[in-house]
Amino acid sequence: MNDIEISQKAEMLPIQSIAQKAGFTEGEVEPYGHYKAKINIFSEKEKGSMGKLILVTSINPTPAGEGKSTVTVGLGDALNEITNSAMVALREPSQGPVMGMKGGATGGGYSQVIPMDDINLHFTGDMHALTAANNTLAALIDNHIQQGNDLNIDPRSIVWRRCLDINDRSLRNIVIGLGGRFSGVPREDAFDITVASELMAILCLSKDLSDLKDRINRILIANTYDGKPVFVKDLHVGGAITALLKDAIKPNLVQTIGHTPALIHGGPFANIAHGCNSVLATRTALEHADYAITEAGFGADLGAEKFLDIKTPVLGKTPDAIVIVATIRALKYNGGANLADLQTEDLTALERGFVNLKRHVKNMMSYNIPVTVSINHFVSDTDAEVSKLAEMVKALGVNAIVTDAWAKGGEGSKELANEVIRLTNQDLGDMHKLYDVNDSIKNKIETVVKNIYGGSGVEFSSAALKKIKECEENGWDKMPVCMAKTQYSFSDDPKKLGAPSDFVIQVSDINIRLGAGFLVALTGKILTMPGLPKHPAALDIDINSKGEITGLF
Amino acid sequence: MNDIEISQKAEMLPIQSIAQKAGFTEGEVEPYGHYKAKINIFSEKEKGSMGKLILVTSINPTPAGEGKSTVTVGLGDALNEITNSAMVALREPSQGPVMGMKGGATGGGYSQVIPMDDINLHFTGDMHALTAANNTLAALIDNHIQQGNDLNIDPRSIVWRRCLDINDRSLRNIVIGLGGRFSGVPREDAFDITVASELMAILCLSKDLSDLKDRINRILIANTYDGKPVFVKDLHVGGAITALLKDAIKPNLVQTIGHTPALIHGGPFANIAHGCNSVLATRTALEHADYAITEAGFGADLGAEKFLDIKTPVLGKTPDAIVIVATIRALKYNGGANLADLQTEDLTALERGFVNLKRHVKNMMSYNIPVTVSINHFVSDTDAEVSKLAEMVKALGVNAIVTDAWAKGGEGSKELANEVIRLTNQDLGDMHKLYDVNDSIKNKIETVVKNIYGGSGVEFSSAALKKIKECEENGWDKMPVCMAKTQYSFSDDPKKLGAPSDFVIQVSDINIRLGAGFLVALTGKILTMPGLPKHPAALDIDINSKGEITGLF
Repeated sequence: MNDIEISQKAEMLPIQSIAQKAGFTEGEVEPYGHYKAKINIFSEKEKGSMGKLILVTSINPTPAGEGKSTVTVGLGDALNEITNSAMVALREPSQGPVMGMKGGATGGGYSQVIPMDDINLHFTGDMHALTAANNTLAALIDNHIQQGNDLNIDPRSIVWRRCLDINDRSLRNIVIGLGGRFSGVPREDAFDITVASELMAILCLSKDLSDLKDRINRILIANTYDGKPVFVKDLHVGGAITALLKDAIKPNLVQTIGHTPALIHGGPFANIAHGCNSVLATRTALEHADYAITEAGFGADLGAEKFLDIKTPVLGKTPDAIVIVATIRALKYNGGANLADLQTEDLTALERGFVNLKRHVKNMMSYNIPVTVSINHFVSDTDAEVSKLAEMVKALGVNAIVTDAWAKGGEGSKELANEVIRLTNQDLGDMHKLYDVNDSIKNKIETVVKNIYGGSGVEFSSAALKKIKECEENGWDKMPVCMAKTQYSFSDDPKKLGAPSDFVIQVSDINIRLGAGFLVALTGKILTMPGLPKHPAALDIDINSKGEITGLF
Repeated sequence: MNDIEISQKAEMLPIQSIAQKAGFTEGEVEPYGHYKAKINIFSEKEKGSMGKLILVTSINPTPAGEGKSTVTVGLGDALNEITNSAMVALREPSQGPVMGMKGGATGGGYSQVIPMDDINLHFTGDMHALTAANNTLAALIDNHIQQGNDLNIDPRSIVWRRCLDINDRSLRNIVIGLGGRFSGVPREDAFDITVASELMAILCLSKDLSDLKDRINRILIANTYDGKPVFVKDLHVGGAITALLKDAIKPNLVQTIGHTPALIHGGPFANIAHGCNSVLATRTALEHADYAITEAGFGADLGAEKFLDIKTPVLGKTPDAIVIVATIRALKYNGGANLADLQTEDLTALERGFVNLKRHVKNMMSYNIPVTVSINHFVSDTDAEVSKLAEMVKALGVNAIVTDAWAKGGEGSKELANEVIRLTNQDLGDMHKLYDVNDSIKNKIETVVKNIYGGSGVEFSSAALKKIKECEENGWDKMPVCMAKTQYSFSDDPKKLGAPSDFVIQVSDINIRLGAGFLVALTGKILTMPGLPKHPAALDIDINSKGEITGLF
C-alpha cells in the first residue's frame, strides 16, 4: 500500500475524543468535519507548565525529502505509547508541492497525520486565509494610489508582493495595472508562494491576536516619493487584515495513525522563509503534553538554525533535545552517488557523504543542546551500511538510532524515543546563541555562513548593501536574519553536496520584514515562487464519484 | 444596533440541532465550528419528494442593494413559523464587496443568516477552494507551454484567466511570464473576481461529483496554433482540479436568527455571472422542506432571468412563486430622485419610477409563474407612498405586501408568507420558456434584450461575431446565454434608470463556457473584476483581542 491508501484505511477516532485525551476543554474545540478541529486560543484557560520540547531536523535532503515528518510522527507515537503524554506539532502542507513535485507533508507509511488528503488539500483554510489577507492588502495599496495617493506612495517602491499557494513560475515577474486610467497604475509586481509571505511568518510568530495585529500594522509596504517608509498602519487597514486571519491563527488539531494528538499549524518553507510551525501551536503542545515533538524544514542549516535563532526567542523555550534525521540514501547522494544508484550498497560514497551529517551534528551541538541521530531506515539499506554509519556517528559523541517509522509507526521508533527521553533528562545549561541580534546585519549573516554553513565569507550585491544601509538608518538592524538559500547544499549552489568549504555566499538582496521581525537575506539564485516540473503530481491525482482521492503522495 | 451587532447578540442553536430539525442524518453533517456545517452529499440516502420553490428577486437596485436577502430570510422565518417546514437557500458572499463597497450578503437586521461575520469572511472556504482550483489550472496550462508545449497551445489564445475573490482593478490587465526563459512564456493575462469564474458557475450547476468532473474536463482553455480547441481533459488534470473542489461542492448549513435552517452555497454575481446559488443546495432544500426559499442576484432582468433560463433546466424544478422585492426608495431613485433625497416623500418620482417595477412584474408573469411584490419597508416610507405603490401594483393583477423583515424578522414577513402559500397552491401549468436553447445565439440574445430588457435590438462587435461563428462551427451554439450587464439599468448603460426603451445593447464579446454549459455575452462596459472605492469598507473593519469583529456590514 502507498501512503494515501494506508491513511485512508487507518481507523480514525472522533476529533473530540483526541481533544479530550489531550486535555482540551469542549469549549476550546471547534470541529472541522469529524476528524479535524481548530483550538480556540481566545479562551482564558489557565496555562499549565511546559513539557519537554524535541526538535526534529535533518541533513541536506535529496529532492524527494528524507522522511523528517515521518520520523517526527513515529517518534511522537512512540513517546505517547511510553509516556501517555506526547503531542506532535507540524507545519501545514502547501498545495504548491502537493500539485507539483515533492508531494504533501504529512509523514509516510504508518507514521502519518490523518486525514492525509484533507490536510494536504485546503485543510482548515489557513493558507487561503493568508492568501486572501495578503492580496487584500495588495489591492488596498494599489487602490490607495489609484484614488489620489494621499500617502504619496512611490509605486516603484512597493515591496508588498501578491501571493498564491501554488507553484506558478509565470507569476514571478509581471506587470499590473495596464488597460488605461480606470484599471490602476501600471507597475512591476510579483507573486510569491504564500508560504514565503511575510503574513505567513507573522502568523507563525504571533503570540496572540493583539500581537498579530501589532505585527501587521508594522509591516513595511513601500516608500514615499521622498523616501519615507510607509507601513500598514498608515493605510488604516491593520484591523481588516487581522480580521481575515481570526480563524487562521487558531492551531489545528488532528491525529496520527497511532492516535497521538497532532497540532498542524503554519507552514513557511525553510529555504525561502523561516521554516517552523507556529509559536502558538508549539506552546499549546508544550502546555498540554510532557513531550512536544516538532520539526523544522529541510536541513539543519535552514529550518533548525532558524528555529533556534528566530523562533526560540519568541517561543521563550529552548529545545530539550534535537533529533537529526539522516538516510543512508541521502548520505550516499551527498557522497557523490547518482540518484539512480542509491539502492545499491556503496560504503565509499556513504563515508564520503557522512561529512554532511557530521557538520550538521557539530552545528547543532554548538548550540549546547543534546543531539541524537535517527537513521531513517529504507529496505535498500544494507547491514554493513547501517553499522558503518552508526560507528561514524558514535565517534562524534552522539548515538545513532535506526528508526523504521514508515513501516512500523511508533513501534519502529521506540528506541529513538527512549534515547530522546534520556537526552531530555540531561541538563547542559543554557542554549548557546549563534549571534547577538544587536550585532550588525553583515556580521550576523557572516556568522551564519561561517559557523553553520562552513563557508569562507559573504559577498553582498549593491542592492543588498543599499537595503542594509536603509535598515541601519531606520534602526531596523537589530533583528535576526532569515537566510533564503537552497536546501540541497550548505552553500548557495545546489550542486555542491557533502560539506563544501571555501565557498562564498552571494547575498543578492535583503527583504525587510518588520512585521515578522527579521531580515531575509536572499542568497544565490533562490526563488520565492517555485515552478512546476515537466510531469506535475496533478496529472496523477484523481477523485471518484464518492469523493475518494487517489494519487496524492 | 447595526447588522453585525444584532447578529452577534443573536442566540444560536448548535448546528447539529438545526440539522436534525431539518431532517439531516448525523452522518450527513460535517460540522465547521459549532454553528456551521457542510452537508455530505456523497451519502446514499433515499431522496424524498420535493417541496415548493419560491424565488425572490427584485427591481433594479440602488448601489446599496434593496434588501432582497433580508426579505428572503424574513420570508423563510415566517414560512417556517407557519408551516414548520421551510428552508432558505442563499448564495455565499464574496469578500470583494465585503472589503469594498456593498458589504456582505447575509441579510440585515432581524432577518439575517448567522454567524454573519464567519459567513462573510472565508465561511467554509468554498470561494478559496475555487480560487485555488482555478489558479492551479492556470499554472498547469502555463507550465505545459513552458515544458515543451506538446499540445501546441497558442499562448495568445488562452481564454482561461486567473482569479481572486477580491476587488482588484490592478489585476484586470496584466502581463505575466516576464524575467527570462526560466520564468515562463510572456503573455497577456487577467484576473477575474472568483465569483465570475467558470468554475464557480460549474460548481453551482453540477448535480454531483461525476458531473463536476465531466464539466471541468469539458472546459475550453485555449486553441492550438492551427486553431483547434484545447480542453482541460487534454491536459489530464480534470481529476486534480475536481479533487480540489471535493468539499466545496458540499452545501453549507447555517441558521437564520429565527433558527430556520439555511443552506448557503455557491455565489456567482448576477451581473457578470449567472447569479444563482448551487443546484445541489436548492435541491437539498427542496428535498428536506415543504418550502425552499431562494434568491437570484440583482434585478429580475439579471438573476431571475438566469435562474429561469439557465438554472431551472438543470435543477429540473420550476419556481412555484416569484417574489419581487421593491423599495420605495429605489423606485423614487429610478424615477429620477437623487440618492440624497430618497428619505423625502416624493409621489411623483415614485410614480415615474414605478415603470421599473412594472416591467419586472410583467417579465416574471410572462414565464407563467405566480408573482407577488414585497414592498421592503423603510422608516422613511410615508403612508401615502405605500398606498400609492400598492395601488399601482394591484392594477397589474398582483398583490403588493408590505414587509418589515429588517426590524421584525419573520413576524414582519407573515403576510408575505401567507400570500406566497396562496400563490404556490395555484396551478398555472408549465412554465413558459423565454427562448429555445436550439435557437441561434444571436436570436437568443435578441430575445432576452427585446422581451426582458425592453430594448430595440443588439449590436455585436466584430470580436463577438467571431466568437459566435466559432461556436456555430464547433456545435457550441445550443446552450443558454448568460448576459453580463450592469445591474442598475435594463439597458447596458447604468445611468438609464426606470424603464428605458429604444435602446440597443452592445455585445462586446462572448465568453465560451463549455463546462458551465452557457455562453456569456458581455454587454456595455461591464467588467469581470471590480475595483475598490475611495473609502473601502476594509478601513472600518477591526477586531479586538478576543476575536470580536466590528465594522462589517
